[in-house]
Amino acid sequence: MIRVSIIGVTSYTGLELLRMLALHPEFVVTSVTARSAVGKRLDEVFPQLAAVGYPGRQDRPAVDPALIVTEEPEQSDLAFVCLPHAAAAESVLKLLERGVKVVDLSADFRLRDVHVYEEWYKHTHPAPALLETAVYGLCERYRERLHDTSLVANPGCHVTAAVLGLIPAFANNLIEPDVIVDSKTGISGAGRSLALQNHFAEANEGADAYGLSGHRHMPEIKQELEAAASDAGYPIPNGLRITFVPHRIPMTRGILSTSYTNLRINADGRAPTTDEVRAIYKQYYAGEPFVHVANQPPQTKWTYASNHCFVYPIVDTRTNRLIVVSCLDNLVKGAAGQAIQCANLVYGFPETMGIAGVGVNP
Amino acid sequence: MIRVSIIGVTSYTGLELLRMLALHPEFVVTSVTARSAVGKRLDEVFPQLAAVGYPGRQDRPAVDPALIVTEEPEQSDLAFVCLPHAAAAESVLKLLERGVKVVDLSADFRLRDVHVYEEWYKHTHPAPALLETAVYGLCERYRERLHDTSLVANPGCHVTAAVLGLIPAFANNLIEPDVIVDSKTGISGAGRSLALQNHFAEANEGADAYGLSGHRHMPEIKQELEAAASDAGYPIPNGLRITFVPHRIPMTRGILSTSYTNLRINADGRAPTTDEVRAIYKQYYAGEPFVHVANQPPQTKWTYASNHCFVYPIVDTRTNRLIVVSCLDNLVKGAAGQAIQCANLVYGFPETMGIAGVGVNP
Amino acid sequence: MIRVSIIGVTSYTGLELLRMLALHPEFVVTSVTARSAVGKRLDEVFPQLAAVGYPGRQDRPAVDPALIVTEEPEQSDLAFVCLPHAAAAESVLKLLERGVKVVDLSADFRLRDVHVYEEWYKHTHPAPALLETAVYGLCERYRERLHDTSLVANPGCHVTAAVLGLIPAFANNLIEPDVIVDSKTGISGAGRSLALQNHFAEANEGADAYGLSGHRHMPEIKQELEAAASDAGYPIPNGLRITFVPHRIPMTRGILSTSYTNLRINADGRAPTTDEVRAIYKQYYAGEPFVHVANQPPQTKWTYASNHCFVYPIVDTRTNRLIVVSCLDNLVKGAAGQAIQCANLVYGFPETMGIAGVGVNP
Amino acid sequence: MIRVSIIGVTSYTGLELLRMLALHPEFVVTSVTARSAVGKRLDEVFPQLAAVGYPGRQDRPAVDPALIVTEEPEQSDLAFVCLPHAAAAESVLKLLERGVKVVDLSADFRLRDVHVYEEWYKHTHPAPALLETAVYGLCERYRERLHDTSLVANPGCHVTAAVLGLIPAFANNLIEPDVIVDSKTGISGAGRSLALQNHFAEANEGADAYGLSGHRHMPEIKQELEAAASDAGYPIPNGLRITFVPHRIPMTRGILSTSYTNLRINADGRAPTTDEVRAIYKQYYAGEPFVHVANQPPQTKWTYASNHCFVYPIVDTRTNRLIVVSCLDNLVKGAAGQAIQCANLVYGFPETMGIAGVGVNP
Repeated sequence: MIRVSIIGVTSYTGLELLRMLALHPEFVVTSVTARSAVGKRLDEVFPQLAAVGYPGRQDRPAVDPALIVTEEPEQSDLAFVCLPHAAAAESVLKLLERGVKVVDLSADFRLRDVHVYEEWYKHTHPAPALLETAVYGLCERYRERLHDTSLVANPGCHVTAAVLGLIPAFANNLIEPDVIVDSKTGISGAGRSLALQNHFAEANEGADAYGLSGHRHMPEIKQELEAAASDAGYPIPNGLRITFVPHRIPMTRGILSTSYTNLRINADGRAPTTDEVRAIYKQYYAGEPFVHVANQPPQTKWTYASNHCFVYPIVDTRTNRLIVVSCLDNLVKGAAGQAIQCANLVYGFPETMGIAGVGVNP
Repeated sequence: MIRVSIIGVTSYTGLELLRMLALHPEFVVTSVTARSAVGKRLDEVFPQLAAVGYPGRQDRPAVDPALIVTEEPEQSDLAFVCLPHAAAAESVLKLLERGVKVVDLSADFRLRDVHVYEEWYKHTHPAPALLETAVYGLCERYRERLHDTSLVANPGCHVTAAVLGLIPAFANNLIEPDVIVDSKTGISGAGRSLALQNHFAEANEGADAYGLSGHRHMPEIKQELEAAASDAGYPIPNGLRITFVPHRIPMTRGILSTSYTNLRINADGRAPTTDEVRAIYKQYYAGEPFVHVANQPPQTKWTYASNHCFVYPIVDTRTNRLIVVSCLDNLVKGAAGQAIQCANLVYGFPETMGIAGVGVNP
Repeated sequence: MIRVSIIGVTSYTGLELLRMLALHPEFVVTSVTARSAVGKRLDEVFPQLAAVGYPGRQDRPAVDPALIVTEEPEQSDLAFVCLPHAAAAESVLKLLERGVKVVDLSADFRLRDVHVYEEWYKHTHPAPALLETAVYGLCERYRERLHDTSLVANPGCHVTAAVLGLIPAFANNLIEPDVIVDSKTGISGAGRSLALQNHFAEANEGADAYGLSGHRHMPEIKQELEAAASDAGYPIPNGLRITFVPHRIPMTRGILSTSYTNLRINADGRAPTTDEVRAIYKQYYAGEPFVHVANQPPQTKWTYASNHCFVYPIVDTRTNRLIVVSCLDNLVKGAAGQAIQCANLVYGFPETMGIAGVGVNP
Repeated sequence: MIRVSIIGVTSYTGLELLRMLALHPEFVVTSVTARSAVGKRLDEVFPQLAAVGYPGRQDRPAVDPALIVTEEPEQSDLAFVCLPHAAAAESVLKLLERGVKVVDLSADFRLRDVHVYEEWYKHTHPAPALLETAVYGLCERYRERLHDTSLVANPGCHVTAAVLGLIPAFANNLIEPDVIVDSKTGISGAGRSLALQNHFAEANEGADAYGLSGHRHMPEIKQELEAAASDAGYPIPNGLRITFVPHRIPMTRGILSTSYTNLRINADGRAPTTDEVRAIYKQYYAGEPFVHVANQPPQTKWTYASNHCFVYPIVDTRTNRLIVVSCLDNLVKGAAGQAIQCANLVYGFPETMGIAGVGVNP
């Protein structure tokens, strides 16, 4: 059994890790930390976890509701870091020094260019050298590199949705390097901290845009799409022109990304059709356990509480635009589920282990 | 007092008209029709209307809960037609023949080009000549023409949000004739009829895109933006290139439109700044009772159950795109409220009469 | 015009007063206070209020979006106090000294017995003498006393729903003095302050009971039901036996109270029937502008954003229990609307002035 | 592997069975029926199921998305029947004749007294003899009898919540035989069929009571509580006096039951305290994998998409009432999850097999 710590367990990603790891056959959570809850039992912090540790259970629970939250983690084999950026990097450094493998759910190791990081996150990166060795945890792209790495940078939620939706187009040189990503997210994306805009009475029955002067997930999307194009032999010399606008909508979980791009004219002197694009997408994602090319516009709910992502490309024949709708659960494929998927790959376990469930519907 | 009939009263727009007209000092509802509810009292169809007609009330109720739903309307001065397209046109013709002024909430008289209408609505228009005389009920644009017209074509809900958001940019030649409108709507936009996708358990906690192969509000947006540009002296010779994608999100009311455009370079050889654009928008909407340029990204909830529309333009300086967020209540400014605003103008009443309330918050 | 101040304007009741007073023809808001927002314009605190003060409006706005929030109120004729208990009483005392009439939306003057107050609110009442002169603002009961009073104690939200549902039964000696009130409230009932349980992601898709060891609305319900019985000639010698359990359910507004009681056997040696009870209820509320005996189980939504209350009594013939379902909007008839209704009565205006609208549906 | 058919697969209980069985190691779904979807693939009916059958998956999927819906079931070892009552009984009879074991999720075999069944369901029972042999599928009560039975009557959703909340009190003679159950349910409880009251725009932001003149879950609660009392040696000679009122609240899943009872005076001449009652409850449910005595009022969300039930008893010391709050997911412990729990017991598998997950939060 792999001993796992969760650093920052009182967050929504921490809770989601607990829920999912409770059913994982190879990981066992042995240490949980959170400054705000030191000394409490896990089931005091999250009462529903009382349900995990019943007597008579035949499979030993991977999550023990009686586990005490501490300030510093106990030694473990693997740690999931669920801290805000900056705090995360500090924690990661300490863990790596102690020989712990780390999946970092913050943004601290996602951007490979330290200058971009410092421009967007407004502080000096404490370990720029690690940016090169950290593996970006988009399993569909970096599966091989993830095996046996000691530091995984788990992707952002909007990023995962947008990038999975657009990679096949860039990897097949279908579109111009100019994209608009209009992304809609449920309120859990804002985390568990208190803010007026997250108050039920404020968020319910309302929708708005945010991050309009620049959102930190934008450079991350840009980095990954440029890398995908480049790795496929279609580099973007002047960089991708990209506009990304996230929106808050009144639901708990889920991200729906709608991306707008311009199709390139192909060798026949015309833009590809929806059928041709779909065939390319299906080919690209053939064999992927968690990314599915949908036959109809997908609903975020298809992915609720699951690690799946649905992608739906369609050509707007009046404008030769390629529109791609993609969706996932921000806390699972957009955070905790993808983190476990990465950890499975790090340890060479089957990629779907413990996270194979389908979306909760209705 | 102006005698009003509501044709198709069991719809959500019919109900919203009843709610708003109940407080209107000049209109009195004297006839309501609906095939599915013939012979019923209004407060049997909508029990909450029992609250309108209490004894001792000093202001005579403009809506009588004891009114009986009929199949054919009684004679009146004005009719609001809340029928599906095609059925609406038939009803409108009969009403006009009887000398009744009509505000038609369907799409039947919105598109001025009969070919466009027939391409998108797939049936022969019964009265193409009326397309020229009908006045499009976007009050902020056609205020003068509305006075004393006998047929108003009330705009579509997505259309009102998108067009109010983009008109100042086109009227001031700020942007290229190429726009993407990503619109999000609450579920009441689908009407009161039953469909699996409107079931609470299906719609709640889910979001999806629809109309991806072409939605009927697109040609309407195109028509109005081209007209606005043209009327302002900036005609679009090859027509507007436009992509419009509506999305369903889990709320009852509200539309949030996010429009993406490319700024033109101005005489100084640069794109205008957000401040410059905002000044132009504020100027354009100065004096408008129902359209407001917001100082921060607006939330649909600001407009809940009100006739107001908030518009928020911002420049994406990295791409020189102009992004405009606009929002309104699809049943009010997007339907019944705008219809009453039109009717106020038709009769020369103050434009805000009976519809001056602000949004319901929280 | 009556000059009005709102003390504690940043609360949900403060906001709701602004929304409703904006359409009131006799009250004009001239002063607003809130410690947390001193120096801000009203439309900075609540951006949607920008919609109130447009140029060209013919009816002078009763609420000016440019009004500056202050720490202490300016002199006015009337004040609505929207502060937490204890703070409210202090403010009320100062206002009364300055000759201002007060409608207090807190609990400070609701309980006529100072010992009960101090038992439940755990602090010494600063002005016990005022408890006798304050008029409890349940208009349907104390209409006459409200005229010309200088201090109104606006009832609690759960209390209004429960008491309006049960008064006709006690006033007609229909039931035993033993009731269970199971009440369900939307999240705005918790106010605008931040707490984890009000976070959208926590409250959405969840329901729970609270106040199980005793909720402060219980003694208030008890007081009013005992008074109603007593005033009708059916005093309850040993006091009412009552259990009251409030529940949080995932909606913004609305209270639904379900009350369970045991019918008395009447002179015929049997319990009254539903029809008989309903006739008594209809008689009791005949002529009431805001309380309606429904013909079917009412939905909270019938009352959304309105000052109406629907009451539905039914006999459970298997047990001879009388069940009464009653509902209202906690922020309107349960707070701000009722406060304005009281103020109308204080000044001798028509009781429905400015608050006559019906519920917003859908 | 046990071959399983699902009869009436297009229902919400059918879908939930698919979701849960997809992770079950011993059951494999080999046949699915639904009159409305004959000839369709499972992933056409429920597109999210496309995610189940990916290539390379190491554990063979228990649910194949390519399975074709048929009108009549293929031969299998076990069938879950998800049909409306009456239709269910017919289907059950045929299945039993073919030697198939059956878990019936309808009400057809829940009531042991055929007269009670016929009074409440208004039709002649086709197989009254089976009422005696069918085992009521409340595992916590009938665990032993479930082993090897051929017909399980899966309990109703409200019933499971109420009965699990009250059984320990009756089994320990704590309370008088007189209870009020006020139950709140999410909208999925109404099933997947279309009705105006289930329309998102009607149900959202609204709450109401239903079944006020008598709901079919009442006799079922009565039967089970009387049986529990009797089996524990405390029979109720004149039968239980019970009032049951269900309420619809705007959430997708979840039942919250609040039960009100009167405590008996114990041998010490006083009512038991909360601590004493809680100790008795903890004792009663010690060792139960799915029923937990909570330390604070439980929220339905604790149980979201899980098979767990939380129970919270508290004494109202002012009235000597015992109040019990209990909650569960109506589609899991209230339907599909409990059905699988029963099937596990029928086959002698570990009771938690395939259904051990904890609630999805947030």
